[in-house]
Amino acid sequence: MSEQIISADLVANHNSTRQPALERDYASLGERLDRRGIAIDAIRDKMEKFGVAIPSWGVGTGGTRFARFPGAGEPRDIFDKIEDCAVISQLTQATPTVSLHIPWDKADPNRLKQAAARFGLGRTLGSKALTVWIGDGSNFPGQVSFAKAFERYLDAMRQIYAGLPDDWRLFTEHKMYEPAFYSTVVQDWGTNYIIAKELGDKAFCLVDLGHHAPNVNIEMIVSRLIQFGKLGGFHFNDSKYGDDDLDAGSIDPYRLFLVFNELVDAELSGAKGFHPAHMLDQSHNVTDPIESLMQSAVEVQRAYAQALLVDRKALDGFQEANDALMATQTLKTAYRTDVEPILAMARLRTGGAIDPVAAYREAGYRAKVAAERPGVAGGGGGIV
Amino acid sequence: MSEQIISADLVANHNSTRQPALERDYASLGERLDRRGIAIDAIRDKMEKFGVAIPSWGVGTGGTRFARFPGAGEPRDIFDKIEDCAVISQLTQATPTVSLHIPWDKADPNRLKQAAARFGLGRTLGSKALTVWIGDGSNFPGQVSFAKAFERYLDAMRQIYAGLPDDWRLFTEHKMYEPAFYSTVVQDWGTNYIIAKELGDKAFCLVDLGHHAPNVNIEMIVSRLIQFGKLGGFHFNDSKYGDDDLDAGSIDPYRLFLVFNELVDAELSGAKGFHPAHMLDQSHNVTDPIESLMQSAVEVQRAYAQALLVDRKALDGFQEANDALMATQTLKTAYRTDVEPILAMARLRTGGAIDPVAAYREAGYRAKVAAERPGVAGGGGGIV
Amino acid sequence: MSEQIISADLVANHNSTRQPALERDYASLGERLDRRGIAIDAIRDKMEKFGVAIPSWGVGTGGTRFARFPGAGEPRDIFDKIEDCAVISQLTQATPTVSLHIPWDKADPNRLKQAAARFGLGRTLGSKALTVWIGDGSNFPGQVSFAKAFERYLDAMRQIYAGLPDDWRLFTEHKMYEPAFYSTVVQDWGTNYIIAKELGDKAFCLVDLGHHAPNVNIEMIVSRLIQFGKLGGFHFNDSKYGDDDLDAGSIDPYRLFLVFNELVDAELSGAKGFHPAHMLDQSHNVTDPIESLMQSAVEVQRAYAQALLVDRKALDGFQEANDALMATQTLKTAYRTDVEPILAMARLRTGGAIDPVAAYREAGYRAKVAAERPGVAGGGGGIV
Amino acid sequence: MSEQIISADLVANHNSTRQPALERDYASLGERLDRRGIAIDAIRDKMEKFGVAIPSWGVGTGGTRFARFPGAGEPRDIFDKIEDCAVISQLTQATPTVSLHIPWDKADPNRLKQAAARFGLGRTLGSKALTVWIGDGSNFPGQVSFAKAFERYLDAMRQIYAGLPDDWRLFTEHKMYEPAFYSTVVQDWGTNYIIAKELGDKAFCLVDLGHHAPNVNIEMIVSRLIQFGKLGGFHFNDSKYGDDDLDAGSIDPYRLFLVFNELVDAELSGAKGFHPAHMLDQSHNVTDPIESLMQSAVEVQRAYAQALLVDRKALDGFQEANDALMATQTLKTAYRTDVEPILAMARLRTGGAIDPVAAYREAGYRAKVAAERPGVAGGGGGIV
Repeated sequence: MSEQIISADLVANHNSTRQPALERDYASLGERLDRRGIAIDAIRDKMEKFGVAIPSWGVGTGGTRFARFPGAGEPRDIFDKIEDCAVISQLTQATPTVSLHIPWDKADPNRLKQAAARFGLGRTLGSKALTVWIGDGSNFPGQVSFAKAFERYLDAMRQIYAGLPDDWRLFTEHKMYEPAFYSTVVQDWGTNYIIAKELGDKAFCLVDLGHHAPNVNIEMIVSRLIQFGKLGGFHFNDSKYGDDDLDAGSIDPYRLFLVFNELVDAELSGAKGFHPAHMLDQSHNVTDPIESLMQSAVEVQRAYAQALLVDRKALDGFQEANDALMATQTLKTAYRTDVEPILAMARLRTGGAIDPVAAYREAGYRAKVAAERPGVAGGGGGIV
Repeated sequence: MSEQIISADLVANHNSTRQPALERDYASLGERLDRRGIAIDAIRDKMEKFGVAIPSWGVGTGGTRFARFPGAGEPRDIFDKIEDCAVISQLTQATPTVSLHIPWDKADPNRLKQAAARFGLGRTLGSKALTVWIGDGSNFPGQVSFAKAFERYLDAMRQIYAGLPDDWRLFTEHKMYEPAFYSTVVQDWGTNYIIAKELGDKAFCLVDLGHHAPNVNIEMIVSRLIQFGKLGGFHFNDSKYGDDDLDAGSIDPYRLFLVFNELVDAELSGAKGFHPAHMLDQSHNVTDPIESLMQSAVEVQRAYAQALLVDRKALDGFQEANDALMATQTLKTAYRTDVEPILAMARLRTGGAIDPVAAYREAGYRAKVAAERPGVAGGGGGIV
Repeated sequence: MSEQIISADLVANHNSTRQPALERDYASLGERLDRRGIAIDAIRDKMEKFGVAIPSWGVGTGGTRFARFPGAGEPRDIFDKIEDCAVISQLTQATPTVSLHIPWDKADPNRLKQAAARFGLGRTLGSKALTVWIGDGSNFPGQVSFAKAFERYLDAMRQIYAGLPDDWRLFTEHKMYEPAFYSTVVQDWGTNYIIAKELGDKAFCLVDLGHHAPNVNIEMIVSRLIQFGKLGGFHFNDSKYGDDDLDAGSIDPYRLFLVFNELVDAELSGAKGFHPAHMLDQSHNVTDPIESLMQSAVEVQRAYAQALLVDRKALDGFQEANDALMATQTLKTAYRTDVEPILAMARLRTGGAIDPVAAYREAGYRAKVAAERPGVAGGGGGIV
Repeated sequence: MSEQIISADLVANHNSTRQPALERDYASLGERLDRRGIAIDAIRDKMEKFGVAIPSWGVGTGGTRFARFPGAGEPRDIFDKIEDCAVISQLTQATPTVSLHIPWDKADPNRLKQAAARFGLGRTLGSKALTVWIGDGSNFPGQVSFAKAFERYLDAMRQIYAGLPDDWRLFTEHKMYEPAFYSTVVQDWGTNYIIAKELGDKAFCLVDLGHHAPNVNIEMIVSRLIQFGKLGGFHFNDSKYGDDDLDAGSIDPYRLFLVFNELVDAELSGAKGFHPAHMLDQSHNVTDPIESLMQSAVEVQRAYAQALLVDRKALDGFQEANDALMATQTLKTAYRTDVEPILAMARLRTGGAIDPVAAYREAGYRAKVAAERPGVAGGGGGIV
């Protein structure tokens, strides 16, 4: 059994005071779902198996164009990062894997594997997927030839693809802009799709929710990529303006649900080659990164649970009958169900905390590491 | 007592089959809210008093630039419209008033008052507010002088304002664009605020949720207008791209909640001069307008109920402590509460239907009026 | 020789008073271009051969969601429309073809051919291209299954494609939204590209400048479609907010230039299968449609002329040297050249007017047809 | 006479080879303008008097969220910065002032004044204006109370305002977002206007072209602020997506012209209290900052010159006659005039270079300072 950073006693105490109310809420939700023909335990079982990856860099404070203000107890190296990730995993039981950023996290692979295994994050280095995001682009009209730049990109990717082991997948990510401010070589899903087609069957498109033009219907892009067998997975976060990298579901939770509505539809209909990789990809500037990542993992899980509650047979019927109002209300009925008891029960049963943020605060983890890890100076500069 | 268009027996039957489950759900929600220190009956009482106005033109099918495809049984005149509005009011008990569009709805005021009174829509012509939306603007740079056009606007409004009875209010509405496609004379809340300041104490700003630039933080505009005593009220609808005039809460329900979060905050803190006027302002092209208006009235009411559940004392504390994560989770906890049992119980107790759309369909109202009201030809044309 | 609607004498008089100044300006511009290594006559020759199609529906007043306010002398049928198009063609010499909208312009093909031939618009019915724009979509999440709707679209298009003569091309057009306000079946160039790939070698993508999300880099999309052999052509217009359908180049003339920069680059580099079809696609609500279409044809031609002035060898050098400032200034030097003398000289030499709008007004054409064509009532309605 | 960093001989040689062609171009443009009733020398005289301020921080390389890649020869301190600004001023003769960023540029005021005076930048410390931009805001709904945050802002500003000398002006700047990603305390011109009104007659609004929501009509905001006596001035730059801080006029030069069209209109009509302060506010990541600032100063000057060419009497007439097409063409006629000969002649006559970027490169300034100023390590980090 893997080592636990937060004491098991503390978690048990935390849970024992909350368990009676949770059981009542779970039962009454179960009754309501039963009336809708849904077995609550089946949903809970799916939650117990669901996982979203944590990026190693996510546990540090993010930056802005102007400056970075590191929080207390920032991880000093990849081993500190793995410990922080282990806390998230222990309390939420929803983040079994860590995604590494190789140039930043360079370390002896064996030592990394040991560290991960110690905390039950066994899949940390077991990855069979490579994600490539290229920020290359231009700031001014004429600075680059769009066609030549894309040819160079494709040439380079073909070489990477050629070296990919047979059982690996290659994920490419599109982004509208930033750090380039006039053009970006993989600017949208159209270009991303062309890349995946040009490279071959092991190449897939990764969708970051914040990398689109204003007003774009992202769930429709998700559907298209599923339909043509090219959805690789997600970088979850939320945004109001640009690539804000805010916590998943914090700005537009219904959009997150609509994305999962497509994913669940694909899962249930057995879409060919559909096994998306999910990761949180956020930048935490005003919150404790561990808290934000715990909450975000729960929000992603919540959207998944809500999407599982959609009455798909009724939805099909309304769609066929062109009954727009009832079709959209079918989604809303699922969405507005408060599935927190299901998520909490899944955590309780798998060793997590009923309220992960509260348990984390009770454990005083941040104060403890702040004492152990000396402060880092903030980066900064830039312009206004 | 006012006349009821949908038979009381039908509504009673509809409700009797649903009442037992509703009572169980209401009780279990009551228990959960009680744990959070909230008395469910107090929220329900507020729901029973809440109302949003229906625009008379909303019960007809809307148009697009290309064509209009009228539905069956469209109202032929303002009296048919009042009947349709009465159905909405009867089943939802949330829309006690009708807003008239004078040039389109011209009719003998006494006959109008009688028709409204007959269906309990007594406030139809009792309005003490005048809303002015001017689509004036330009399609090309240079077509108009921005300054002169705004001077002309202000001159005209000063004349209208001068003729306003003492106990009336004047609402002006801003809109980014359409039908003018380069500039619009009251293009945003900044101009709208200047108008209300220039005109005087009886002038207020009306906010239509779909009339803003992409990505704009509308709830912040609401807060500003409240803070400076100039919020007149709302035109509720939803949108994904422009002034889409879709059903309230259908695209971004969390945004609707965040708007009501500001309204409830103002209501509870006793903001000076705060008594906003609420109206649905939607265009129905693919749904039965009566169904969309019923559902939208419920969605507006739902956002209000959720906003009432925000633990404002805790929120203040988190804001003061700069605890961003718990502050935003305080809003989310309220938002994700499924308040449907409260809304349904309020309807049941005031004579409405537990499920208004289902009751409406059971009553066969649309088929009935389709038989009585001859079809209208669609308008059309325009370009691609 | 084809019949001329505006009297040849009037045009000759118009030109004779303007010719001396034009010749001086042409000479001095020629000297400046010569210093940059450009032969002005070669550019002028290209202008004389350039043409953009006029849509038959463009000569009527457009509509808005609220109402349509027809101008005086609106064409009553396709034969009136052909006459209006002939005026545009005569004075600008830049619009040799008319694009028909079959359901709206239904008439005996032989009679149409005769009418077109009479005014030298011989290619009116000689088209070997079919453009399909489908506004199908949904207004609410859940209303349609994105995947099924797209399958139905592809099935229908495959049938159309199968019936296409061997020497025809099929153009499909994408549009972000409107008249559907939540999803549109061909919502962006990514979906459009998939369509063209799925259908086959005769299928190409049509780009309408107003059909994109806010901030999207359209010239980059143009480059991608050229690079992968799928650019079919353009619907030219301009926009500030949505699909505003304003006059080409009226809002962002530099964007129009940047599009032509890609087109000229493809033309000069001999991009495989590159022979795009250009059409104006505008809606005229506040101007005389004939005047707007004349001016817009000239603006499209202007962007083409400016793009021909780009020093492409220097640009390549700056791009290779990563000299962003000089690369972008190379485009700007071409763009800010006032090429009006080239355009006017091309018109003069081919029988057009040096100043088409002025000549049109001198001819009193609008007043003349207003007297002959009885007024049309405006359509209207819709909501606010 | 002030000291010149670039040798006077080099500039003289540079100019002498270009002067003959310039004189021919100036004469032929003069003839064309004369036909339009415009005296070219009067425009040139205005150019000689025009100036835009350079921000001291602009001569260093800017940053992105991910990293900063400093160029060679970066200024080490404010005195190096003043030298770089002096080069810009010498060659363009359009940037007589330097704007300091006090916390970053802290130095002995007397030494600063001497350094500025040495290079003829006498107004560097003679400023009588204080610009305040506050990036304060929130990343999550609920994190702050909009109203309380704005009250705190107003309280702080009232204290600053109270300490302002009588002959000083206070400029406040709005910005939609960044570094805060959900709300910003001065988010738009509406809030900015309220601030200026609340503070008093010495408070004005500053407009940064990149700080608005997508699609917003900025020139209209400029007109409103002029009309109500609250326009303080500009931060010039350009952008395609967000606050991109690209070179002025590089993305949408017509928008820059339309802004100057409003400014010239106010200047000519003697708008009360109208004396705006202009500054470049850009971030240079892929170009030599000195080159970008020189070119940008010229672009701002170019927009001013073009706006001076608008036939305002004709424009008024077309506006009154509702002749949209001719009104907008009146602006276009001015805009598409290539005024480069006027700008170059103004530079030649005041001691600048006909082609500033070319002269700067001929002088080898960057290589020279790169040798003198040791390299600075780039900042970096952040997330993806």
